Amino acid sequence: MSDLTPPVVILDRSQLADNIGSVARVMANFGLSELRLVSPRDGWPQDRAWATASGADWVLEGVKVFDTVAEAVADLNTVFATTARPRETRQPVRTPRESARVLYDDTASGLKTGLLFGGERAGLETTDIALCSGITTIPIDPKHHSLNLAQAVAINAYEWRTLILDAPPPRFREQDPPASNDLLVGMYEHLETELEAGGFFFPPEKKRSMTQNLRVMLGRSAFSEQEVATFRGVIHALAKGRGRLLAKMAAKKDE
Amino acid sequence: MSDLTPPVVILDRSQLADNIGSVARVMANFGLSELRLVSPRDGWPQDRAWATASGADWVLEGVKVFDTVAEAVADLNTVFATTARPRETRQPVRTPRESARVLYDDTASGLKTGLLFGGERAGLETTDIALCSGITTIPIDPKHHSLNLAQAVAINAYEWRTLILDAPPPRFREQDPPASNDLLVGMYEHLETELEAGGFFFPPEKKRSMTQNLRVMLGRSAFSEQEVATFRGVIHALAKGRGRLLAKMAAKKDE
Repeated sequence: MSDLTPPVVILDRSQLADNIGSVARVMANFGLSELRLVSPRDGWPQDRAWATASGADWVLEGVKVFDTVAEAVADLNTVFATTARPRETRQPVRTPRESARVLYDDTASGLKTGLLFGGERAGLETTDIALCSGITTIPIDPKHHSLNLAQAVAINAYEWRTLILDAPPPRFREQDPPASNDLLVGMYEHLETELEAGGFFFPPEKKRSMTQNLRVMLGRSAFSEQEVATFRGVIHALAKGRGRLLAKMAAKKDE
Repeated sequence: MSDLTPPVVILDRSQLADNIGSVARVMANFGLSELRLVSPRDGWPQDRAWATASGADWVLEGVKVFDTVAEAVADLNTVFATTARPRETRQPVRTPRESARVLYDDTASGLKTGLLFGGERAGLETTDIALCSGITTIPIDPKHHSLNLAQAVAINAYEWRTLILDAPPPRFREQDPPASNDLLVGMYEHLETELEAGGFFFPPEKKRSMTQNLRVMLGRSAFSEQEVATFRGVIHALAKGRGRLLAKMAAKKDE
Protein backbone atom coordinates (compact mmCIF):
# COMPACT_ATOMS: atom_id res chain seq x y z
CA MET A 1 0.00 0.00 0.00
CA SER A 2 1.13 3.47 -0.75
CA ASP A 3 0.56 6.83 0.94
CA LEU A 4 0.41 8.77 -2.33
CA THR A 5 -2.15 11.56 -2.55
CA PRO A 6 -4.92 10.24 -4.79
CA PRO A 7 -6.24 12.29 -7.71
CA VAL A 8 -8.71 15.09 -7.06
CA VAL A 9 -12.14 14.49 -8.61
CA ILE A 10 -13.69 17.50 -10.38
CA LEU A 11 -17.36 17.42 -11.42
CA ASP A 12 -18.33 20.07 -13.95
CA ARG A 13 -21.90 21.41 -13.66
CA SER A 14 -23.39 18.29 -12.12
CA GLN A 15 -27.16 18.41 -11.98
CA LEU A 16 -28.29 15.95 -9.35
CA ALA A 17 -27.21 16.08 -5.72
CA ASP A 18 -27.91 12.32 -5.57
CA ASN A 19 -25.16 11.80 -8.09
CA ILE A 20 -22.73 13.98 -6.16
CA GLY A 21 -23.42 11.81 -3.10
CA SER A 22 -22.95 8.61 -5.11
CA VAL A 23 -19.66 9.96 -6.43
CA ALA A 24 -18.51 10.72 -2.87
CA ARG A 25 -19.45 7.18 -1.81
CA VAL A 26 -17.52 5.50 -4.58
CA MET A 27 -14.52 7.81 -4.10
CA ALA A 28 -14.41 6.67 -0.46
CA ASN A 29 -14.75 3.05 -1.57
CA PHE A 30 -11.54 3.36 -3.53
CA GLY A 31 -9.62 5.66 -1.19
CA LEU A 32 -10.10 9.02 -2.96
CA SER A 33 -11.15 11.97 -0.85
CA GLU A 34 -10.85 15.37 -2.54
CA LEU A 35 -13.93 16.46 -4.47
CA ARG A 36 -14.39 19.76 -6.34
CA LEU A 37 -17.61 20.99 -7.90
CA VAL A 38 -17.82 23.46 -10.75
CA SER A 39 -21.13 25.39 -10.72
CA PRO A 40 -23.38 22.63 -9.39
CA ARG A 41 -26.85 23.33 -10.83
CA ASP A 42 -28.71 23.37 -7.52
CA GLY A 43 -25.99 25.04 -5.45
CA TRP A 44 -24.09 23.54 -2.56
CA PRO A 45 -24.47 21.99 -0.01
CA GLN A 46 -27.49 19.78 -0.79
CA ASP A 47 -28.99 17.39 1.76
CA ARG A 48 -29.71 14.75 -0.85
CA ALA A 49 -26.00 14.28 -1.46
CA TRP A 50 -25.53 13.16 2.14
CA ALA A 51 -28.40 10.69 1.73
CA THR A 52 -26.73 8.87 -1.15
CA ALA A 53 -23.14 9.14 0.13
CA SER A 54 -23.88 6.28 2.51
CA GLY A 55 -21.56 7.59 5.21
CA ALA A 56 -18.76 9.03 3.07
CA ASP A 57 -19.40 12.33 4.83
CA TRP A 58 -15.78 13.42 5.01
CA VAL A 59 -15.68 13.63 1.22
CA LEU A 60 -18.77 15.86 1.08
CA GLU A 61 -17.61 18.02 3.96
CA GLY A 62 -14.35 18.71 2.18
CA VAL A 63 -16.02 19.75 -1.11
CA LYS A 64 -14.75 22.96 -2.69
CA VAL A 65 -16.91 24.87 -5.19
CA PHE A 66 -15.60 26.80 -8.19
CA ASP A 67 -17.15 28.92 -10.94
CA THR A 68 -15.13 27.56 -13.83
CA VAL A 69 -13.18 24.43 -14.70
CA ALA A 70 -10.09 26.61 -15.23
CA GLU A 71 -10.23 27.74 -11.58
CA ALA A 72 -10.94 24.23 -10.32
CA VAL A 73 -7.86 22.76 -12.00
CA ALA A 74 -5.57 25.79 -11.58
CA ASP A 75 -3.29 24.16 -8.97
CA LEU A 76 -3.14 20.74 -10.64
CA ASN A 77 -0.32 19.54 -12.87
CA THR A 78 -1.91 16.58 -14.60
CA VAL A 79 -5.65 16.42 -15.26
CA PHE A 80 -7.45 13.86 -17.41
CA ALA A 81 -10.92 14.54 -18.78
CA THR A 82 -13.14 11.46 -18.86
CA THR A 83 -15.21 11.63 -22.00
CA ALA A 84 -16.14 9.65 -25.06
CA ARG A 85 -13.35 9.49 -27.59
CA PRO A 86 -13.69 12.65 -29.68
CA ARG A 87 -13.96 12.25 -33.46
CA GLU A 88 -10.88 14.32 -33.88
CA THR A 89 -8.43 15.24 -31.20
CA ARG A 90 -4.82 16.13 -30.90
CA GLN A 91 -4.76 15.25 -27.22
CA PRO A 92 -3.61 11.83 -26.05
CA VAL A 93 -6.54 9.42 -25.47
CA ARG A 94 -6.03 6.72 -22.84
CA THR A 95 -8.00 3.90 -21.25
CA PRO A 96 -8.74 4.29 -17.51
CA ARG A 97 -5.96 1.79 -16.84
CA GLU A 98 -3.38 3.69 -18.88
CA SER A 99 -4.48 6.97 -17.30
CA ALA A 100 -4.17 5.54 -13.79
CA ARG A 101 -0.60 4.57 -14.56
CA VAL A 102 0.31 8.11 -15.67
CA LEU A 103 -1.46 9.61 -12.64
CA TYR A 104 0.41 7.20 -10.42
CA ASP A 105 3.80 8.04 -11.87
CA ASP A 106 3.09 11.77 -11.73
CA THR A 107 1.83 11.58 -8.14
CA ALA A 108 4.92 9.63 -7.17
CA SER A 109 6.95 12.48 -8.66
CA GLY A 110 5.21 14.92 -6.31
CA LEU A 111 2.71 16.35 -8.81
CA LYS A 112 -0.94 17.14 -8.13
CA THR A 113 -3.34 15.21 -10.32
CA GLY A 114 -7.04 15.28 -11.10
CA LEU A 115 -9.88 13.58 -12.91
CA LEU A 116 -12.45 15.81 -14.62
CA PHE A 117 -16.01 14.65 -15.36
CA GLY A 118 -18.80 16.43 -17.22
CA GLY A 119 -22.40 16.98 -16.15
CA GLU A 120 -25.09 14.33 -16.56
CA ARG A 121 -26.51 15.70 -19.82
CA ALA A 122 -24.14 18.23 -21.29
CA GLY A 123 -20.80 16.49 -20.80
CA LEU A 124 -17.66 18.60 -20.99
CA GLU A 125 -17.06 21.71 -23.08
CA THR A 126 -14.26 21.29 -25.58
CA THR A 127 -12.59 24.42 -24.18
CA ASP A 128 -12.41 22.73 -20.77
CA ILE A 129 -11.12 19.49 -22.25
CA ALA A 130 -8.40 21.55 -23.91
CA LEU A 131 -7.21 22.58 -20.43
CA CYS A 132 -6.49 18.94 -19.57
CA SER A 133 -3.34 16.92 -20.10
CA GLY A 134 -5.28 14.21 -21.89
CA ILE A 135 -8.52 12.31 -22.37
CA THR A 136 -9.63 9.14 -20.63
CA THR A 137 -12.16 7.03 -22.50
CA ILE A 138 -14.01 4.21 -20.78
CA PRO A 139 -14.53 1.27 -23.17
CA ILE A 140 -18.32 1.53 -23.38
CA ASP A 141 -20.43 -0.57 -25.72
CA PRO A 142 -21.52 1.84 -28.47
CA LYS A 143 -24.92 0.12 -28.34
CA HIS A 144 -25.59 1.71 -24.93
CA HIS A 145 -23.19 4.49 -24.15
CA SER A 146 -25.06 6.47 -21.51
CA LEU A 147 -22.85 5.77 -18.50
CA ASN A 148 -23.94 6.99 -15.07
CA LEU A 149 -21.66 9.70 -13.64
CA ALA A 150 -20.86 7.78 -10.44
CA GLN A 151 -20.04 4.70 -12.52
CA ALA A 152 -17.57 6.69 -14.59
CA VAL A 153 -15.89 7.90 -11.40
CA ALA A 154 -15.99 4.35 -10.01
CA ILE A 155 -14.12 2.83 -12.95
CA ASN A 156 -11.35 5.44 -12.75
CA ALA A 157 -11.11 5.28 -8.96
CA TYR A 158 -11.03 1.48 -9.08
CA GLU A 159 -8.14 1.56 -11.55
CA TRP A 160 -6.25 3.97 -9.30
CA ARG A 161 -6.71 1.75 -6.26
CA THR A 162 -5.91 -1.47 -8.11
CA LEU A 163 -2.71 0.12 -9.28
CA ILE A 164 -1.55 1.37 -5.89
CA LEU A 165 -2.42 -1.96 -4.27
CA ASP A 166 -0.36 -3.78 -6.86
CA ALA A 167 2.29 -1.15 -6.14
CA PRO A 168 4.57 -1.36 -9.15
CA PRO A 169 7.69 0.72 -8.80
CA PRO A 170 6.77 4.23 -9.92
CA ARG A 171 8.43 5.48 -13.07
CA PHE A 172 9.79 8.84 -12.11
CA ARG A 173 9.74 11.64 -14.63
CA GLU A 174 13.07 12.29 -16.18
CA GLN A 175 11.99 15.70 -17.42
CA ASP A 176 10.99 18.64 -15.29
CA PRO A 177 7.41 18.33 -14.04
CA PRO A 178 4.63 20.07 -15.94
CA ALA A 179 3.66 23.51 -14.69
CA SER A 180 0.39 23.96 -12.86
CA ASN A 181 -2.64 24.73 -14.95
CA ASP A 182 -3.00 28.38 -13.95
CA LEU A 183 0.49 29.12 -15.23
CA LEU A 184 -0.37 27.46 -18.52
CA VAL A 185 -3.62 29.36 -18.88
CA GLY A 186 -1.80 32.61 -18.14
CA MET A 187 0.61 31.77 -20.92
CA TYR A 188 -2.21 30.89 -23.34
CA GLU A 189 -4.00 34.14 -22.58
CA HIS A 190 -0.82 36.11 -23.07
CA LEU A 191 -0.34 34.46 -26.44
CA GLU A 192 -3.96 34.93 -27.46
CA THR A 193 -3.96 38.63 -26.53
CA GLU A 194 -0.91 39.23 -28.65
CA LEU A 195 -2.26 37.19 -31.53
CA GLU A 196 -5.53 39.12 -31.36
CA ALA A 197 -3.61 42.40 -31.49
CA GLY A 198 -1.74 41.07 -34.49
CA GLY A 199 -4.91 40.22 -36.40
CA PHE A 200 -4.15 36.48 -36.26
CA PHE A 201 -7.72 35.41 -35.62
CA PHE A 202 -9.24 35.74 -39.02
CA PRO A 203 -12.04 35.33 -39.82
CA PRO A 204 -13.13 36.35 -36.29
CA GLU A 205 -15.74 33.56 -35.99
CA LYS A 206 -12.88 31.07 -36.14
CA LYS A 207 -11.17 32.55 -33.11
CA ARG A 208 -12.67 30.03 -30.72
CA SER A 209 -11.56 26.94 -32.59
CA MET A 210 -8.18 28.45 -33.49
CA THR A 211 -7.56 29.28 -29.82
CA GLN A 212 -8.46 25.80 -28.81
CA ASN A 213 -6.26 24.13 -31.35
CA LEU A 214 -3.35 26.22 -30.13
CA ARG A 215 -3.98 25.29 -26.51
CA VAL A 216 -4.20 21.60 -27.31
CA MET A 217 -1.11 21.75 -29.48
CA LEU A 218 0.98 23.47 -26.84
CA GLY A 219 -0.64 21.53 -23.99
CA ARG A 220 0.64 18.24 -25.37
CA SER A 221 4.21 19.24 -24.69
CA ALA A 222 3.48 19.63 -20.96
CA PHE A 223 5.68 22.70 -20.41
CA SER A 224 7.52 22.90 -17.12
CA GLU A 225 7.35 26.07 -15.07
CA GLN A 226 10.68 27.16 -16.55
CA GLU A 227 9.45 26.45 -20.07
CA VAL A 228 6.30 28.49 -19.49
CA ALA A 229 8.51 31.41 -18.50
CA THR A 230 10.66 30.84 -21.57
CA PHE A 231 7.68 30.70 -23.87
CA ARG A 232 6.21 33.85 -22.37
CA GLY A 233 9.55 35.44 -23.12
CA VAL A 234 9.17 34.27 -26.71
CA ILE A 235 5.69 35.76 -26.99
CA HIS A 236 6.86 39.01 -25.48
CA ALA A 237 9.87 39.23 -27.76
CA LEU A 238 7.81 38.52 -30.86
CA ALA A 239 5.07 40.95 -29.95
CA LYS A 240 7.55 43.67 -29.09
CA GLY A 241 9.27 43.20 -32.44
CA ARG A 242 5.93 43.43 -34.16
CA GLY A 243 5.24 46.60 -32.16
CA ARG A 244 8.46 48.10 -33.50
CA LEU A 245 7.64 46.98 -37.00
CA LEU A 246 4.19 48.56 -36.79
CA ALA A 247 5.76 51.73 -35.40
CA LYS A 248 8.22 51.74 -38.27
CA MET A 249 5.46 51.19 -40.80
CA ALA A 250 3.40 53.96 -39.22
CA ALA A 251 6.43 56.22 -39.32
CA LYS A 252 6.99 55.43 -43.01
CA LYS A 253 3.37 56.27 -43.79
CA ASP A 254 3.80 59.60 -42.12
CA GLU A 255 6.90 60.43 -44.17
CA MET B 1 -13.80 -7.54 -30.64
CA SER B 2 -15.13 -10.93 -29.81
CA ASP B 3 -18.54 -12.56 -30.13
CA LEU B 4 -18.23 -14.58 -26.93
CA THR B 5 -21.34 -14.89 -24.77
CA PRO B 6 -20.74 -12.60 -21.79
CA PRO B 7 -21.30 -13.85 -18.23
CA VAL B 8 -24.83 -14.01 -16.84
CA VAL B 9 -25.42 -11.63 -13.91
CA ILE B 10 -27.34 -13.11 -10.97
CA LEU B 11 -28.69 -10.83 -8.22
CA ASP B 12 -29.67 -12.64 -5.03
CA ARG B 13 -32.58 -11.11 -3.10
CA SER B 14 -32.08 -7.56 -4.30
CA GLN B 15 -34.23 -5.07 -2.43
CA LEU B 16 -34.54 -1.99 -4.59
CA ALA B 17 -35.94 -1.96 -8.10
CA ASP B 18 -33.86 1.19 -8.72
CA ASN B 19 -30.76 -0.87 -8.19
CA ILE B 20 -31.94 -3.59 -10.55
CA GLY B 21 -32.43 -0.90 -13.20
CA SER B 22 -28.99 0.57 -12.53
CA VAL B 23 -27.48 -2.89 -12.84
CA ALA B 24 -29.23 -3.38 -16.20
CA ARG B 25 -27.91 -0.01 -17.39
CA VAL B 26 -24.32 -0.77 -16.51
CA MET B 27 -24.55 -4.29 -17.94
CA ALA B 28 -25.61 -2.73 -21.23
CA ASN B 29 -22.77 -0.19 -20.97
CA PHE B 30 -20.27 -3.02 -20.96
CA GLY B 31 -22.02 -5.41 -23.34
CA LEU B 32 -23.61 -7.85 -20.87
CA SER B 33 -27.26 -8.74 -21.40
CA GLU B 34 -28.50 -11.74 -19.39
CA LEU B 35 -29.85 -10.86 -15.94
CA ARG B 36 -31.34 -13.32 -13.42
CA LEU B 37 -33.04 -12.36 -10.17
CA VAL B 38 -33.33 -14.64 -7.16
CA SER B 39 -36.38 -13.76 -5.02
CA PRO B 40 -36.40 -9.98 -5.55
CA ARG B 41 -37.95 -8.48 -2.42
CA ASP B 42 -40.68 -6.51 -4.17
CA GLY B 43 -41.45 -9.04 -6.91
CA TRP B 44 -40.97 -8.61 -10.63
CA PRO B 45 -41.44 -6.65 -12.88
CA GLN B 46 -41.14 -3.24 -11.16
CA ASP B 47 -41.65 0.04 -13.03
CA ARG B 48 -38.89 1.77 -11.10
CA ALA B 49 -36.31 -0.53 -12.66
CA TRP B 50 -37.18 0.76 -16.12
CA ALA B 51 -36.82 4.34 -14.86
CA THR B 52 -33.20 3.84 -13.76
CA ALA B 53 -32.18 1.53 -16.61
CA SER B 54 -31.90 4.59 -18.85
CA GLY B 55 -32.95 2.72 -21.96
CA ALA B 56 -31.33 -0.67 -21.33
CA ASP B 57 -34.79 -2.18 -21.69
CA TRP B 58 -33.71 -5.33 -23.48
CA VAL B 59 -31.82 -6.39 -20.36
CA LEU B 60 -34.89 -5.92 -18.12
CA GLU B 61 -37.22 -7.55 -20.62
CA GLY B 62 -35.03 -10.65 -20.69
CA VAL B 63 -34.90 -11.00 -16.88
CA LYS B 64 -35.57 -14.48 -15.48
CA VAL B 65 -36.69 -14.94 -11.88
CA PHE B 66 -35.73 -17.89 -9.66
CA ASP B 67 -36.55 -18.97 -6.10
CA THR B 68 -33.05 -20.03 -5.10
CA VAL B 69 -29.48 -19.34 -6.11
CA ALA B 70 -29.04 -23.04 -6.79
CA GLU B 71 -31.76 -22.92 -9.44
CA ALA B 72 -30.45 -19.69 -10.91
CA VAL B 73 -26.96 -21.10 -11.48
CA ALA B 74 -28.01 -24.67 -12.34
CA ASP B 75 -27.06 -24.48 -16.03
CA LEU B 76 -23.82 -22.55 -15.52
CA ASN B 77 -20.37 -24.10 -15.42
CA THR B 78 -18.31 -21.34 -13.84
CA VAL B 79 -19.84 -18.88 -11.38
CA PHE B 80 -17.96 -16.35 -9.27
CA ALA B 81 -19.52 -14.83 -6.18
CA THR B 82 -18.59 -11.18 -5.66
CA THR B 83 -18.16 -10.64 -1.96
CA ALA B 84 -15.73 -9.32 0.61
CA ARG B 85 -12.83 -11.66 1.19
CA PRO B 86 -14.04 -14.14 3.81
CA ARG B 87 -11.93 -14.54 6.95
CA GLU B 88 -11.50 -18.17 6.15
CA THR B 89 -12.23 -19.84 2.89
CA ARG B 90 -11.06 -22.81 0.97
CA GLN B 91 -12.35 -21.38 -2.29
CA PRO B 92 -10.07 -19.46 -4.64
CA VAL B 93 -10.29 -15.69 -4.11
CA ARG B 94 -9.58 -13.51 -7.16
CA THR B 95 -9.57 -9.84 -8.09
CA PRO B 96 -12.16 -8.76 -10.69
CA ARG B 97 -9.36 -8.73 -13.25
CA GLU B 98 -8.22 -12.26 -12.48
CA SER B 99 -11.82 -13.47 -12.47
CA ALA B 100 -12.52 -11.87 -15.85
CA ARG B 101 -9.58 -13.76 -17.28
CA VAL B 102 -10.90 -17.11 -16.04
CA LEU B 103 -14.41 -16.29 -17.27
CA TYR B 104 -12.97 -15.34 -20.63
CA ASP B 105 -10.99 -18.53 -21.00
CA ASP B 106 -13.95 -20.65 -19.90
CA THR B 107 -16.33 -18.85 -22.23
CA ALA B 108 -13.90 -19.31 -25.09
CA SER B 109 -13.97 -23.04 -24.29
CA GLY B 110 -17.75 -23.04 -24.76
CA LEU B 111 -18.75 -22.96 -21.08
CA LYS B 112 -21.55 -20.90 -19.55
CA THR B 113 -20.38 -18.45 -16.92
CA GLY B 114 -21.97 -16.20 -14.34
CA LEU B 115 -21.38 -13.49 -11.76
CA LEU B 116 -23.34 -13.73 -8.50
CA PHE B 117 -24.07 -10.70 -6.32
CA GLY B 118 -25.76 -10.51 -2.92
CA GLY B 119 -28.60 -8.24 -1.80
CA GLU B 120 -28.02 -4.65 -0.68
CA ARG B 121 -28.00 -5.39 3.05
CA ALA B 122 -27.68 -9.09 3.62
CA GLY B 123 -25.00 -10.02 1.09
CA LEU B 124 -24.66 -13.65 0.08
CA GLU B 125 -25.35 -16.74 2.18
CA THR B 126 -22.29 -18.89 2.68
CA THR B 127 -24.24 -21.90 1.39
CA ASP B 128 -24.78 -20.05 -1.90
CA ILE B 129 -21.15 -18.96 -2.11
CA ALA B 130 -20.23 -22.61 -1.67
CA LEU B 131 -22.11 -23.36 -4.91
CA CYS B 132 -19.73 -21.09 -6.83
CA SER B 133 -16.43 -21.88 -8.48
CA GLY B 134 -14.70 -19.09 -6.62
CA ILE B 135 -14.90 -15.70 -4.99
CA THR B 136 -14.27 -12.30 -6.56
CA THR B 137 -13.22 -9.56 -4.16
CA ILE B 138 -13.18 -5.92 -5.27
CA PRO B 139 -10.24 -4.04 -3.70
CA ILE B 140 -12.31 -1.72 -1.51
CA ASP B 141 -10.79 0.63 1.05
CA PRO B 142 -11.57 -0.96 4.44
CA LYS B 143 -12.29 2.56 5.71
CA HIS B 144 -15.46 2.67 3.60
CA HIS B 145 -16.46 -0.72 2.33
CA SER B 146 -20.15 -0.26 1.57
CA LEU B 147 -20.09 -0.56 -2.21
CA ASN B 148 -23.27 0.10 -4.18
CA LEU B 149 -24.64 -3.00 -5.94
CA ALA B 150 -24.57 -1.47 -9.41
CA GLN B 151 -20.98 -0.32 -8.83
CA ALA B 152 -19.95 -3.87 -7.95
CA VAL B 153 -21.54 -5.11 -11.17
CA ALA B 154 -19.92 -2.21 -13.08
CA ILE B 155 -16.39 -3.09 -11.98
CA ASN B 156 -16.79 -6.74 -12.98
CA ALA B 157 -18.52 -5.91 -16.26
CA TYR B 158 -15.86 -3.32 -17.08
CA GLU B 159 -13.11 -5.88 -16.53
CA TRP B 160 -14.91 -8.32 -18.82
CA ARG B 161 -15.23 -5.74 -21.57
CA THR B 162 -11.69 -4.45 -21.20
CA LEU B 163 -10.45 -8.00 -21.54
CA ILE B 164 -12.44 -8.87 -24.66
CA LEU B 165 -11.49 -5.57 -26.29
CA ASP B 166 -7.84 -6.25 -25.64
CA ALA B 167 -8.60 -9.71 -27.05
CA PRO B 168 -5.68 -11.77 -25.81
CA PRO B 169 -5.61 -15.27 -27.26
CA PRO B 170 -7.87 -17.38 -25.06
CA ARG B 171 -6.19 -20.08 -23.04
CA PHE B 172 -8.20 -23.14 -23.80
CA ARG B 173 -8.81 -25.65 -21.03
CA GLU B 174 -6.70 -28.72 -21.37
CA GLN B 175 -8.89 -30.68 -19.00
CA ASP B 176 -12.53 -31.57 -19.54
CA PRO B 177 -14.85 -28.66 -18.77
CA PRO B 178 -16.51 -28.46 -15.37
CA ALA B 179 -19.98 -29.96 -15.10
CA SER B 180 -22.97 -27.66 -14.81
CA ASN B 181 -24.00 -26.64 -11.32
CA ASP B 182 -27.14 -28.75 -11.14
CA LEU B 183 -25.12 -31.91 -11.74
CA LEU B 184 -22.75 -30.91 -8.95
CA VAL B 185 -25.56 -30.15 -6.53
CA GLY B 186 -27.16 -33.50 -7.36
CA MET B 187 -23.87 -35.15 -6.51
CA TYR B 188 -23.53 -33.19 -3.27
CA GLU B 189 -27.05 -34.12 -2.20
CA HIS B 190 -26.43 -37.74 -3.00
CA LEU B 191 -23.31 -37.67 -0.87
CA GLU B 192 -25.02 -35.83 1.98
CA THR B 193 -27.96 -38.21 2.04
CA GLU B 194 -25.66 -41.18 2.33
CA LEU B 195 -23.51 -39.48 4.94
CA GLU B 196 -26.62 -38.62 6.95
CA ALA B 197 -27.72 -42.25 6.81
CA GLY B 198 -24.30 -43.26 8.00
CA GLY B 199 -24.41 -40.95 11.02
CA PHE B 200 -21.57 -38.80 9.66
CA PHE B 201 -23.09 -35.49 10.73
CA PHE B 202 -22.31 -35.49 14.41
CA PRO B 203 -23.10 -33.48 16.43
CA PRO B 204 -26.19 -32.68 14.32
CA GLU B 205 -25.88 -28.89 14.79
CA LYS B 206 -22.63 -29.08 12.87
CA LYS B 207 -24.28 -30.58 9.82
CA ARG B 208 -24.63 -27.25 8.06
CA SER B 209 -20.99 -26.25 8.32
CA MET B 210 -19.75 -29.78 7.63
CA THR B 211 -21.89 -29.95 4.49
CA GLN B 212 -20.58 -26.65 3.34
CA ASN B 213 -16.96 -27.53 3.91
CA LEU B 214 -17.45 -30.68 1.85
CA ARG B 215 -19.06 -28.77 -1.00
CA VAL B 216 -16.28 -26.20 -1.06
CA MET B 217 -13.60 -28.88 -0.87
CA LEU B 218 -15.04 -30.89 -3.74
CA GLY B 219 -16.08 -27.78 -5.67
CA ARG B 220 -12.49 -26.63 -5.94
CA SER B 221 -11.61 -29.56 -8.15
CA ALA B 222 -14.20 -28.53 -10.74
CA PHE B 223 -15.37 -32.03 -11.64
CA SER B 224 -16.25 -32.66 -15.25
CA GLU B 225 -19.54 -34.31 -16.13
CA GLN B 226 -17.76 -37.64 -16.39
CA GLU B 227 -16.10 -37.12 -13.03
CA VAL B 228 -19.43 -36.32 -11.40
CA ALA B 229 -20.74 -39.66 -12.69
CA THR B 230 -17.62 -41.40 -11.43
CA PHE B 231 -17.90 -39.82 -8.01
CA ARG B 232 -21.57 -40.72 -7.74
CA GLY B 233 -20.48 -44.26 -8.50
CA VAL B 234 -18.02 -44.00 -5.63
CA ILE B 235 -20.71 -42.77 -3.24
CA HIS B 236 -23.05 -45.53 -4.34
CA ALA B 237 -20.42 -48.22 -3.99
CA LEU B 238 -19.40 -47.03 -0.53
CA ALA B 239 -22.94 -46.70 0.69
CA LYS B 240 -23.89 -50.10 -0.64
CA GLY B 241 -20.95 -51.66 1.16
CA ARG B 242 -21.97 -49.95 4.33
CA GLY B 243 -25.47 -51.29 3.80
CA ARG B 244 -24.08 -54.81 3.62
CA LEU B 245 -21.97 -54.24 6.70
CA LEU B 246 -24.98 -52.96 8.61
CA ALA B 247 -26.97 -55.96 7.42
CA LYS B 248 -24.21 -58.28 8.60
CA MET B 249 -24.03 -56.55 11.97
CA ALA B 250 -27.80 -56.77 12.31
CA ALA B 251 -27.66 -60.46 11.41
CA LYS B 252 -24.95 -61.08 14.03
CA LYS B 253 -27.05 -59.38 16.69
CA ASP B 254 -29.93 -61.67 15.83
CA GLU B 255 -27.80 -64.78 16.19
